[in-house]
Formats: sequence, C-alpha cells, structure tokens
Amino acid sequence: MNSEKLVLTMSCPDKPGIVYAVTGLLASVGGNILESQQYNDDAEGRFFIRIEAFVPGGKSTIEAAMTQLAQNYSMDFRIAEIDKPVRTLIMVTKESHCLSDLLAKHRDGRLPIDIAAVVGNHEDLRSIAEFYEQEFIYIPITAQSKQEAEQELLNIVREREVELVVLARYMQILSPELCQILAGNVINIHHSFLPSFKGARPYAQAHQRGVKLIGATAHYVTMDLDEGPIIEQDVVRVAHNDTLHDLVAKGAEVERQVLSRAVRWHAEHRVLMNGSRTVIFS
Amino acid sequence: MNSEKLVLTMSCPDKPGIVYAVTGLLASVGGNILESQQYNDDAEGRFFIRIEAFVPGGKSTIEAAMTQLAQNYSMDFRIAEIDKPVRTLIMVTKESHCLSDLLAKHRDGRLPIDIAAVVGNHEDLRSIAEFYEQEFIYIPITAQSKQEAEQELLNIVREREVELVVLARYMQILSPELCQILAGNVINIHHSFLPSFKGARPYAQAHQRGVKLIGATAHYVTMDLDEGPIIEQDVVRVAHNDTLHDLVAKGAEVERQVLSRAVRWHAEHRVLMNGSRTVIFS
Amino acid sequence: MNSEKLVLTMSCPDKPGIVYAVTGLLASVGGNILESQQYNDDAEGRFFIRIEAFVPGGKSTIEAAMTQLAQNYSMDFRIAEIDKPVRTLIMVTKESHCLSDLLAKHRDGRLPIDIAAVVGNHEDLRSIAEFYEQEFIYIPITAQSKQEAEQELLNIVREREVELVVLARYMQILSPELCQILAGNVINIHHSFLPSFKGARPYAQAHQRGVKLIGATAHYVTMDLDEGPIIEQDVVRVAHNDTLHDLVAKGAEVERQVLSRAVRWHAEHRVLMNGSRTVIFS
Amino acid sequence: MNSEKLVLTMSCPDKPGIVYAVTGLLASVGGNILESQQYNDDAEGRFFIRIEAFVPGGKSTIEAAMTQLAQNYSMDFRIAEIDKPVRTLIMVTKESHCLSDLLAKHRDGRLPIDIAAVVGNHEDLRSIAEFYEQEFIYIPITAQSKQEAEQELLNIVREREVELVVLARYMQILSPELCQILAGNVINIHHSFLPSFKGARPYAQAHQRGVKLIGATAHYVTMDLDEGPIIEQDVVRVAHNDTLHDLVAKGAEVERQVLSRAVRWHAEHRVLMNGSRTVIFS
Repeated sequence: MNSEKLVLTMSCPDKPGIVYAVTGLLASVGGNILESQQYNDDAEGRFFIRIEAFVPGGKSTIEAAMTQLAQNYSMDFRIAEIDKPVRTLIMVTKESHCLSDLLAKHRDGRLPIDIAAVVGNHEDLRSIAEFYEQEFIYIPITAQSKQEAEQELLNIVREREVELVVLARYMQILSPELCQILAGNVINIHHSFLPSFKGARPYAQAHQRGVKLIGATAHYVTMDLDEGPIIEQDVVRVAHNDTLHDLVAKGAEVERQVLSRAVRWHAEHRVLMNGSRTVIFS
Repeated sequence: MNSEKLVLTMSCPDKPGIVYAVTGLLASVGGNILESQQYNDDAEGRFFIRIEAFVPGGKSTIEAAMTQLAQNYSMDFRIAEIDKPVRTLIMVTKESHCLSDLLAKHRDGRLPIDIAAVVGNHEDLRSIAEFYEQEFIYIPITAQSKQEAEQELLNIVREREVELVVLARYMQILSPELCQILAGNVINIHHSFLPSFKGARPYAQAHQRGVKLIGATAHYVTMDLDEGPIIEQDVVRVAHNDTLHDLVAKGAEVERQVLSRAVRWHAEHRVLMNGSRTVIFS
Repeated sequence: MNSEKLVLTMSCPDKPGIVYAVTGLLASVGGNILESQQYNDDAEGRFFIRIEAFVPGGKSTIEAAMTQLAQNYSMDFRIAEIDKPVRTLIMVTKESHCLSDLLAKHRDGRLPIDIAAVVGNHEDLRSIAEFYEQEFIYIPITAQSKQEAEQELLNIVREREVELVVLARYMQILSPELCQILAGNVINIHHSFLPSFKGARPYAQAHQRGVKLIGATAHYVTMDLDEGPIIEQDVVRVAHNDTLHDLVAKGAEVERQVLSRAVRWHAEHRVLMNGSRTVIFS
Repeated sequence: MNSEKLVLTMSCPDKPGIVYAVTGLLASVGGNILESQQYNDDAEGRFFIRIEAFVPGGKSTIEAAMTQLAQNYSMDFRIAEIDKPVRTLIMVTKESHCLSDLLAKHRDGRLPIDIAAVVGNHEDLRSIAEFYEQEFIYIPITAQSKQEAEQELLNIVREREVELVVLARYMQILSPELCQILAGNVINIHHSFLPSFKGARPYAQAHQRGVKLIGATAHYVTMDLDEGPIIEQDVVRVAHNDTLHDLVAKGAEVERQVLSRAVRWHAEHRVLMNGSRTVIFS
C-alpha cells in the first residue's frame, strides 16, 4: 500500500539529538528511510529536515509519537502520504500559458496534485479547463463585488478541502484577510525576476531599463505584495532587438516552467518556510 | 596590412537609403564588407549599424567621405582599426578576481585591449598587476583628497591617451564631473542583477531576500549610480544552504565573466548607445 | 500592405561588392532596409545575408532583378513575404508535449506558420489537434505499408502546398527517397544533445552514463539519421536522484522549447544552410 | 577545535535501520549532526549518506565503532576532518587557465585543498605556480621515458601523501597501471560535453559538427579513456560566427569552472561513487 509511504517535514530550534530521536521513532515501528535531507541554518539556529520513509501501518502508526516529539522540540511538523495528491485550486484571468502547462503536466502524471477546480475572473479560459476535463468556475470581480467574490472563493476552498491555491497569472490582488487565512498555501507567479520590477507591467519596465535577461518568480503570497518567500526563479536572455511583445513571449516560457516547478516542489512537500525565505529539499 | 581592416559603427535617425549610401562609399574605394549587422529601433525611429570591412588604404581613405555622409544623415559614427587595441585603464581596490581575469585574458590574446596601467586606491593588487607585467599606480583616496585624486586620474587618462576605463571592483564612486568627462568610456561591474539590489552590500541584500539566482551587471557609468546603460548581465543559481560567503564566491565567478565580456564587446566596437539602453552586435 | 515587407536570404561564394549590389537593387525601387545581418565564412569562402526590407510593390518588383543578380554571383536566394506564414505539416506519434506547444504558440500568434494538418501514425493525439481546431489525419504505418504511407504523405504535402514538415516526436524514420525529396524542409526534434546518444532510447543511455545535463536537438532531416544540420540545442541539469522517468519529464520541457524555437526561426527565414552546418541570423 | 567537525560518507546495500544505527552511534558520543543528505538508489538497491557532524573528541572517538558498524552493513565509509584540507597534486602541460583558476581559488580560501606541488611535463607554467608560491616540478615525458616518469610521479604522490591528483589540462594519458593505483583519486577535465567528442581535438570536432552549445566534463580517470564517472558538466552557447579559436576561448571558461567545482566537491567529500556514476551531495 502506497499510503505507507510517508513524507515527514519538520523544523525547530536546533538541538543535539533531533535526528536520532526521529530516526529512532521510525525504527521503533519498523520504518525504513528512503530519502532524507537536512539543513541547519546556523545564523538562525534553526533545524530543517525532510524524510521519505516506508512506515508499516502508515501515518496513524507514528502520529501520536510524532506529536509528542514535536512538543519536546518545539517543532513544526507535517506528515503527508505520498499517494495522496495535494488538493489544488487554480485561479486564472485571461493568460493561458501557465494554466495549460499545469493541466497538461497534471494529465501526464507529472504533478502530484488533484485539481479541485479552475476559478477564473473572466470566462476566457473555460475551454482550456474543460478540454482537460476540469470544472471551471466563473467568479467575476469588481471593486464592489470583491468581498463577496472572496467569500465565494473561501467557500470553495473549504467545501472542496483545498490545500493549495495557485495563482496562475491571476490578475487580482488578494485582500490582506484572505492572505492571512490562506498563509503558506497560496503560490503566485510574478512575471519578473524579483525584487526587480515589482508591481504592474514588469516586462515594460524591463524593456525600458534595457536589461539583458528577464525572469519570473514563484513565491508564497503574503500581505506585502511581491514580497513573499521565493520558491523558484529563472531567467532567459533577451537582446536589443527583442520588442516588448518578444519579451512577453519569452517570459511566458519562463513563467510556466517556474510556476510548474514551484507547484511540484510544494506538492512533494519539498518546500519549508524559514522566516521570509524558503528551504527547498531537492 | 591589418590597419586596412576597419570597424565602422554608425547610428542616426532612420531614413531609406542609408545602407546603400554607406555600402556605396565602401564599394567606391574597393572595400569589401566582411561582416555586418544592422538594427532599426522602430519605437525610437533610430538606425544602428556595425560593419567590418577591408578597405584598401585604410581609415584615411574613407574618413572625409564618411564625415560628409554623417553630416547628411545626422549620424554619429566611428571608424576603428581592428589591429589597434583599445587603450585601457583598469581601476581596482582589493578584490582580485576581476583584475586577474582581465589580465590573464589580455595576456592570452583574448581581449583586444592595450593596458595603459592599473590604478588602485589600495596597494593590495600591485603584485598581481606586476606579475602580468603591468604598471601599478597607487592613488589613495580620502574624503579630503578625492578631488585631487580624480585630477591625478584624469591626468593619467590624458597623458596615456586612455580610451576606456574599467572599474574592476573599484569601490569608489566617481564624481559627477568625472562621469561627465568620461561619459560612454567607463565600464563598471556591479555585483548584483540590476535593478535588483542597487547600492551597498548587494550579496547581503540578496541573501536576506532569499532569491534563488544571483547575478552581476556590467554597465556604463553615468551620474546616476547603478543606473547607466547595461552592457551585459548573467546569473548563477544559489540554494538555501549557501551562506553569504558562498554567495560572494559564486558571484565572483559571474562578475568576472560578465565584466570580461563587456570589455571585449566594447573593445571590438560591438556596443552602441541607444538612449539609456545598449545595442550589442554579436 | 504587409506583403510589401519582404525577407531576402542569400548565400554565395564571397566576392567584393555583393552587399552594394543588393542594397543598390533595393534602393533603385525605393526599398528601405529594416534589419539585416551578414556573415562571411572565411574558411569556406562563403557569404550569407538576411535582409528584412520594405519594398513598394512587393516581391514582383524585385524578382527579375534578383534572379539576374543571383546568376551573376552564383547565389542561392529566396524572397519571402513576411505576412505569408509558412505552410506547415506536423507529424506525431503518441507523445503530446511538442505538438501541444506548437499548437498553443500558433494559436497565440507566436509562430508565423499556417498549419496544413496534423498527421499521426497513431490516433492518440487527435483530440489535441482538434481542440486547437486543426485537422488530424491518421496514417498508420507498418513494415508492409510504409511505402504506401509515405506516398500518402507526399500527396498531402503536394496537394496542400506544404513548405515545412515538422517531426514533433514522430517515431518513424523517413525513407531516403522522402528525405531527398523534402531536403531542407523537414525539421526533427531528437531527444538528446547530439552527437551524444544517437539512435534509440537516448534518455536511458544518458541515465546509464550518468551525465549531469541532458538535452535536445532540433535539426534538418537528412538520409544520415541524427546527422543533419543542427538548428538549435539546449540542456537542463539533472541530478543523481533523477530517475529515468524524471529525465524523460525534464527532457520533454527542453524538447518542446528547442523545437518551437527551431520552427520559428525557420519560419522567419533566419536559418541558412552552410554545408552540414547552419547559419542562424538572430 | 575544528578537528571535532567531521564529514562521514557511507555507502552500502540498502537495509532498514542504517540511519538509526549511524545517528545512534553519533548520539552515544554526544555528537550533533550539522547537515546530512541521503540517497537510496532503488534500481541498484544501494544506500548513500553524507553527514557533517560535531563530534566531541573527534575522529578517534567514533572510528572503532564505525568500523564495526561498517562490517555489519558491508559498508564503504570514510571519516574526514573538515579542518584538514585534501592533499592535492596538480598536473599540467601548457594551457594555463585551469591551473590559474585552481591556484587563485586556493589562495582566496575557496578550495579546501592543500597543494603538494604542481607537476608539468613542460616548463611553461612554472611562473604561474611560483607566483602563487607553489613548488613546480618538471617531469618531461617521451615515449621512452613514460614508465620512468610515472614512477617519479608515484614517488611524489607517496612521499608527499597526496590524496588527490588533478589533471588540469594535462595532455598525457596515464598508463592503465597508474589509473588502477590511483583509482577514485584522479580528476580530469575533458574539453567536451561527454560523451560527445571523445578523444583528440574536441573543439575542432564540435566546430565541424556545427553544435550550438559546447561544454566541458570533469570526471574520475579510469582505464577507459573519457569513460570514467562524471562529476560535473556545463555548457556555453556558441554561434555560427564563432571560429574554432572562439570555441577554444569560450570553452576555456567552462573548463575551469567545471574543474574547480569538481575539485571543491571532491575535497568537501560530496562525491560518492555509484558504479560508473556519481552521487553528488550538494
């Protein structure tokens, strides 16, 4: 049974003996560690670990003991079942490339997510969602309807037990309240190499400045716009004869790759939060 | 004779017939075009061209006609002899990697420059300059002596007919006056992917922000610090377990490559100014 | 009218005066050069040029004169209208990523091609073709039916005036006869960084060898399998814990990008043949 | 004391409980794990781990227990002291870029090696070695003197307790006997993206084939020329107008970076052998 394959992620203040305690707990139930990676942030005095393990009996076998251990070490921890894809809601506006990429990779078995629905504040991408046999929910947003729309979104998140919200070129800013409720569970793709070119029209800014590389950034959404912890970034070379239109086309390639990688890593429980930064266990 | 191999660079408002006029001028003296690249900036209505040509008789054969043609087309132009390396002054402080790289490439015949001297505001890099058999001139700078020191620098530039000044991790800011006098002829390496992390301690800023790539930027120096036209940029991937010290080491690799490329392109007359941006003919 | 915007590509033995002759021809009909790039292969003594120009009256205005000039200089040349997309046939088997990418980019106006049809030797990708509103033609191939199938293909090429055939992970080898008939007009994507890992199962070969980067190669198809002139290549980093399945997934990303770039460059008439190599005017 | 900071690397057939056994051993002596990374090769049924730990009392405290544990698990293991740089011999011929890079990084504290000497089969690079205050030993090699020269080399290795030999563009092939004696402890830089362009003149081969990227490969030397386990590879883009000379210059940049990274990873005990492949713990 695959549900006996677990991913444990933990972070806590660094202390001697943590690894021994955790591996002892696993050994005591006959578990076998398949892969693990550990990082100690000396500057912050913080310890991070990700363990993939085979645990006979699965999650319930170790949950109580892990909770106890977590208490002893002031530990944040999470136990996930590898065969249980992360329940994901994708939000879009009009740009299709990120959505298409996520849906195609999901269909090809390359993203361990389970798509709860695609939500659009415009109808433009309904056909793509439906081609991939995903439900499309239209939630228009105006200045007046924003609060109501966010409530509708939150209802969907709760009813469908959504664990991850992906803003796949969703051109609305989430309210501070929503950011707080969903903290750590919303990934956005920003179409620049942050912190360069925050805010609106980053490609126009990049073209104007004459940079020689443009990029994209996937990050967790926080109340501070474009300031959340960065999960992944990448860049592509541009030349003097690339028009703004060319930058948008080249950038689209980078955006979709960066976003897909970030979603996959999150869904494989490879991303741990370290203050305003992330630890990525590859 | 190599001095019959010329590089012509021109820029002017776009108009029909420019290429025909120039190629006609070259044909009339029996010249042969070896390589050429042209770019029209539609948005700005501006035309740029770089031509490598064999011209019997060399520069003097076409200079008068070119001057006439330039007048007709409101053209900025330059005729350079390929066998005449660009007279270059390198300025440094304490960091050696960029200087070593430039000097080693120069020695190996990979940079078409002729080194007038190495100027340092500290003595630290004298031994490297001298190992490569270049003169090292020590010009210390204090708040009080800055004006005087810049005058000394300017004297060197004039006496030694310096055409290009390279700030190879030179940790002093040039005065606005000096920037103006040397405009278009000073290349700086900034140790970040501009416009991210302008100003001081860019690697510390990058580490703090948790970016996944760090970079370097070679640009012409203008009065606006870190805002000059960008010549070249590149990046390298960093990970959560890279310390600030690791970022500095990885960044040093990028800095020296970016700076060497920018210097080579400038010295091969491949860089043309287009307002606050550059055209790079590869 | 856009049909007055032309792309001229020429190659011939190098001789003085070619550029002047061509630009003179354009000037004589009131043409204006918008962009041009030239390359002289000294070793081979061969000259290559690509010119984008506005020519009042369009192609017919210069065709006769160009033909004459081409004769004088033993020149291969081609005049293409920028507003006339290249008529393209896409051939596939079962892998969808390259097809999806080409069709999505075509729909978004990012590939100057006009799709004549999608041909598959399996039915698997019919739904994708039809989602993008392209005709799907099923031509199964067995050892016995190969000749007949190729005849059918050739009929489609002729009836639909196909100018470019793209093998988008088409898992059949074209016969030498077909290669010859379509020479210079068939682009294949090979899923390795050629010349490494020619032939079958390149990812398995790469995994076995323990390389640290895998790649993809777009090339013109010739009778020598995997030996045709290379148009574009790119790579992606892999790690020791990437399984063969991971290599296939990472490689798919590179394949589709490399193929799309190659198709776009070909369709923009940026690729000129130089013996067994290519000249790419960017 | 830094000699209490240890790196443990282990590999063995996979079995449950290994990690627990090792961490238990460390915990029993009051050790604290600072960083660890583990990899299970499912296909080969093999387990690999690298642990950085603080161990009061240092290496001697755990050596006996580790030897016992290694026997129980049929384990290859190694305990290294972090403050003890790896004793390294660098071998060169005439090309300077790799040597300069290694010596400069060593001087700047960026390579945890201790240089036993630089051996050259030509005198050309003596001045560089001596500039960096390293001993240069000239061992010429002819067909007749090869055996004798290798014996001299081996004497140096033994007398100076050399742990790592780096072939930094050393243009001689080691005899099978020497390969065997030094197995796993000789790193070579090959100036191509292996397995492309094995053997002589790889840049000429690459130029001839018209590839769009060229690369370099650092690998352990085995009796099969250019077939040893790969440690690191990287590539750089080339264009149609890059001459063979340009390829050599661009390639030199890649070579030195790839070699320096490989040497650093080896010296930090990050490279484990997995048959004909390597595991790299980053």
